[in-house]
Amino acid sequence: MKGNAIVAQSGGPTAVINASAAGVIHAALEAPEIGKVFAAHNGILGVLNDEIYNLGKESPETLEELRWSPSSALGSCRHKVKSDEDRQKIINIFKKHDIRYFFYIGGNDSMDTADKVSKLAKRTGYEMWAVGVPKTIDNDLAETDHCPGYGSVIKYLATMTMEAGRDTEAMYTADTVNIIEAMGRNAGWIAAGTALARRKEEDAPHIILLPEVPFNRAAFAAKVQHYLETIHRCVIVVSEGTKYPNGSFLNETKGDFAKDAFGHVQLGGAAQALQTIVQEDCRVKARIAMPSTIQRTGAHFASLTDNEEAYGAGRRAVQAALEGVTDKMITLVRESDTPYKCSYGLTDLSKVANGEKFFPKDWITDDGFFVTEEFTLYALPLIQGESKPPMQKGLPRYVRTSKHFI
Amino acid sequence: MKGNAIVAQSGGPTAVINASAAGVIHAALEAPEIGKVFAAHNGILGVLNDEIYNLGKESPETLEELRWSPSSALGSCRHKVKSDEDRQKIINIFKKHDIRYFFYIGGNDSMDTADKVSKLAKRTGYEMWAVGVPKTIDNDLAETDHCPGYGSVIKYLATMTMEAGRDTEAMYTADTVNIIEAMGRNAGWIAAGTALARRKEEDAPHIILLPEVPFNRAAFAAKVQHYLETIHRCVIVVSEGTKYPNGSFLNETKGDFAKDAFGHVQLGGAAQALQTIVQEDCRVKARIAMPSTIQRTGAHFASLTDNEEAYGAGRRAVQAALEGVTDKMITLVRESDTPYKCSYGLTDLSKVANGEKFFPKDWITDDGFFVTEEFTLYALPLIQGESKPPMQKGLPRYVRTSKHFI
Repeated sequence: MKGNAIVAQSGGPTAVINASAAGVIHAALEAPEIGKVFAAHNGILGVLNDEIYNLGKESPETLEELRWSPSSALGSCRHKVKSDEDRQKIINIFKKHDIRYFFYIGGNDSMDTADKVSKLAKRTGYEMWAVGVPKTIDNDLAETDHCPGYGSVIKYLATMTMEAGRDTEAMYTADTVNIIEAMGRNAGWIAAGTALARRKEEDAPHIILLPEVPFNRAAFAAKVQHYLETIHRCVIVVSEGTKYPNGSFLNETKGDFAKDAFGHVQLGGAAQALQTIVQEDCRVKARIAMPSTIQRTGAHFASLTDNEEAYGAGRRAVQAALEGVTDKMITLVRESDTPYKCSYGLTDLSKVANGEKFFPKDWITDDGFFVTEEFTLYALPLIQGESKPPMQKGLPRYVRTSKHFI
Repeated sequence: MKGNAIVAQSGGPTAVINASAAGVIHAALEAPEIGKVFAAHNGILGVLNDEIYNLGKESPETLEELRWSPSSALGSCRHKVKSDEDRQKIINIFKKHDIRYFFYIGGNDSMDTADKVSKLAKRTGYEMWAVGVPKTIDNDLAETDHCPGYGSVIKYLATMTMEAGRDTEAMYTADTVNIIEAMGRNAGWIAAGTALARRKEEDAPHIILLPEVPFNRAAFAAKVQHYLETIHRCVIVVSEGTKYPNGSFLNETKGDFAKDAFGHVQLGGAAQALQTIVQEDCRVKARIAMPSTIQRTGAHFASLTDNEEAYGAGRRAVQAALEGVTDKMITLVRESDTPYKCSYGLTDLSKVANGEKFFPKDWITDDGFFVTEEFTLYALPLIQGESKPPMQKGLPRYVRTSKHFI
C-alpha cells in the first residue's frame, strides 16, 4: 500500500463527469496499492478547507448509479489556485491524510492546479502521483481529440433544436423565427454540434452563429430573409459568445443597435439581442429559447459513447498512476472515423494548462452561417447510443453520495 | 360509404398531438364507412384556403412513425374563425370534397370552431359528424380530467428541473440561484408539474411561482433567503404568466420594454425579471433558463401514458363519429388513482368551448410557493413510461408527411 487517493471535480458540470468519477473510484477501490479513496467536497476548495470524505463508505449501488447521474456529485467550484502558498496548503492536507494519488477531473485550470501542486510536492520531497481526467462541454482542451462531456451536450442540444424546429415548422404562420442560445463563450463547438440535427436543407437549424465569425447584421438579416422566402421559417442557433467585429458581445452592443424600437437599452443575452434584430429587420415574430445549464446536464438522453469514454478515462487515470505516471492528463486519441475507433493516450498537464483547441476555420462555411461536412464527420461518432439512467416513478433517479467526512 | 374524412391540428404543438392524428388516421383508414382521409394543411387555414392533402397516400411507415414525432406534422395555426361567412366557406369546401367527418385536434378555440361549423351545417342541411380530440400542454380544457400533451410537458420539464437542479447543487459557490421559466399564461398547471422532481426537501425545485398566486416580492425574497441559509442554493420555477397583485405580468414592470417591435406584449421575460429581483434583494448570482417551445416538443422523452391516451383518443373520436356522435369532444375520465385507470368519455363541444379548468386553489401550499401532495397524486400517473422514437445516427428520426395535395 503506497497511500490513499483523492478525486475531485471542477468547473461547470456535464452529463458524464460523474461517469469519470465512477471510473476513478471503481478502479481505485480495486487497487491493492491504494488505501482509502477520498473525495474533495466542491473541488479544490474541499482540499483547501479539509472537507474530505471517504468514498469507500458509499454503497456499491450508489457508485454504480453515480455513473448515470448528471452534474458533479462530489461538488464543484470555480476557485482558481493562484499561489504557491495555497499549493503548499493542499500538499499539507495531502500529507495529513497520506494522500499520494490525486485525480482531478476538469478543464485547463484544473490541469494547471494539478500540475503545479505535483511539481511543488516533488520539489519539497513529497512523493505523489497526479493524473488529470479531461472534462468540458466546451471541447476546447488542447491535446485531446475531444472532451468527455462534449458528445452529450451536442446530442441533447441537437435533439432540442430538432424538436423546437418542428414546432416552428408547424407554427410558422404565427411564430416564424426561433432563436436558440447555445453555451460557448470563446468557441463555437457546442453551437456547431446542432448541425447534426440537419439532415435535409429544410431541417433546423438553418443558421448557426459562432464566436469565430464576426457578426454582420446585414448579411445575417439577408440570410434569414432567404429562408423566410424559401421555407417560410428560420431556426437560428447562436453561441452566447457571438461578437460584433469590434469584439463586443451581441448583448453588449454600443451605438446604433444598443436601443430597441422604443429607445430602451437592450438587456439580456445573445438570443434576445438577435430577437430584436430579426423583428426590426425582417418584420416577423421571433421566439427565443435559452436552455442554459439544462443543456449540459441532460443525463436522461446523454451519449452512451461519451459516457463510456468518460468512465474509461477515469479508470485509465488510475491505471496510469499505478504504473508510475504523474503530471499527465488522459487524452482521447481518435484512430479512425468509420468505423469510429478511439483509444486513450497521455499528455503533459502543462501542455493542457497552457493550450486551447480552437474550432477549425475551414469547418465553417464560406458565408459564415453554418459548418461543413468535415465537422459532421468529426462530431457524429461522439453522439452514438443513449445512456439510460435508472427510472423511478416516471422520472430519472439520480444519486447523491452520502458524504462520510473524515 | 358515407363520405370522406378530414383531420386538422390547431394551436401550439405538443409532444403527442401527432399520436392523436395517427389514431384518427389509422381508425379512419380502417373504416368502411369512410372514403378518403384528408388532412387540412395548417389547421383550419388549410380548409379555408382549400389546401388539403390525401393521407391515404402516405406510407404505413410514415403513419406509424407519425405517432412518435413531436409537434403538429399536419401544420397548425393560430387563426380564430369568427364569422358565419367563414364557417360557410368551410362547409362549402367540405361539400366540394364530400367531407362528412371532421376531426379537430386542439383546444377550446378549435372546439368552438368545430361546434359552430357543425351546427351551421345542420341548419343548412349538410349532414356531417364533428368530433374533437383534446390537445393542450396547458391542461386547462374543461370537462376532461386532463389533456393529452400535459403529461409529456411536465415529465420533460420536471426532468430538466431535476437535472438543472443538480447543476446548481454542484455549483452553488458560484451559481447560487437558478430560475427556470415554464410556459402557462393563465394557469399554473405546467409549472406545478415540476414539483414531481422534488422527492426530498433538498431537491429542486424549491419554489414554484404560479399565475394563481399574486407575486409578493418581500415574501419571495424571504423564501429564497430561507433556502440560501439552509441548503445554500435555490432553484425556482416560474410560470410565464405570474403576475403582481395589480395584474401586471412580472416582465411588464419595465413598461414598454416588454413589448415587441409590433407593440404586442411578449411574455417570456418572467425569469429575467425575477433574476434582477434575486440579485437585488438576496445579493447572490442567479442564472436563468427559458426552455420555451423545447419543453412542449420533447418527444425523445415523452410520457408513454400520455402518448397512449393521445393515440387512443384519436381512435375513439373516429369510433364515436361512426356511431353517429357529433358535436362532441373525447374526454379522459379518471376512474382511479392507484392503480391509475382512465377511460374515454364524451362531452359537448360547446361546454369545452366556453369552459376553462382552473388550477385548484387548495392544491397550492399556504405560503403560496409550492403545490400540495394532492397535486402529486393527480399528476404522477400522467408521466409514467417513456416513449422512445426511432433513432437514426444518434438522434431521433422524426417524420414528415409527403403531402399529396388534392
